[in-house]
Amino acid sequence: MGGRGSFCYPRAFAAFAADPAQLLLAVTHGPDVVGTAQLTEIPGLSRGGTTRLQVEAVRVRADLRGQGVGAALFGWAVDEARRRGCALVQLTTDTRRPEAHRFYERLGFTASHVGFELQL
Amino acid sequence: MGGRGSFCYPRAFAAFAADPAQLLLAVTHGPDVVGTAQLTEIPGLSRGGTTRLQVEAVRVRADLRGQGVGAALFGWAVDEARRRGCALVQLTTDTRRPEAHRFYERLGFTASHVGFELQL
Repeated sequence: MGGRGSFCYPRAFAAFAADPAQLLLAVTHGPDVVGTAQLTEIPGLSRGGTTRLQVEAVRVRADLRGQGVGAALFGWAVDEARRRGCALVQLTTDTRRPEAHRFYERLGFTASHVGFELQL
Repeated sequence: MGGRGSFCYPRAFAAFAADPAQLLLAVTHGPDVVGTAQLTEIPGLSRGGTTRLQVEAVRVRADLRGQGVGAALFGWAVDEARRRGCALVQLTTDTRRPEAHRFYERLGFTASHVGFELQL
């Protein structure tokens, strides 16, 4: 990736390392990383002061999709949410990815919200 | 709020105080708090390693809605996102709140994602 973004990775990894609310997951298959995701633990005052776990940046290696890598990744993430005492796991996915929507519904997620973005 | 939730507020406020990625906003009008929101700064590896600001728990006092409290709150939040070097502001809102959707679209947000939740 070119442009200013190429200079941001060291800062991003430093931010992950410094913040116990941040976790980067890697699913390995032998020597290969075949799936990744980012978890953020978010405290809250809504719903009685409960904590939630947000999942972002879910990636599965293209040639291994549909073989349970994503399900394994989410199995671990949901267990981690319970270990951390979270009441909720949340994520957003692009409106143009109906196959991802079906995947999350199979895992028990409900499409209850609209996700808005503002580019700066 | 009764039940187990009523015991979680001290833990939630302690988590906010300990984490520089967390901000609680309060909009005041004279002596009154008339609007609140929660900001979370989230580092990322997507989009070249950019950081995003997430807005949650937006509340405006019911008798003061439609008078610019929310716009003032978001004006400050977007400025704060720029001060922190974020490339993106993101939020989710309940699918059943079309008036909120119009509000965010007026502020320049795009409804690009579907928000999924899993209750634990």
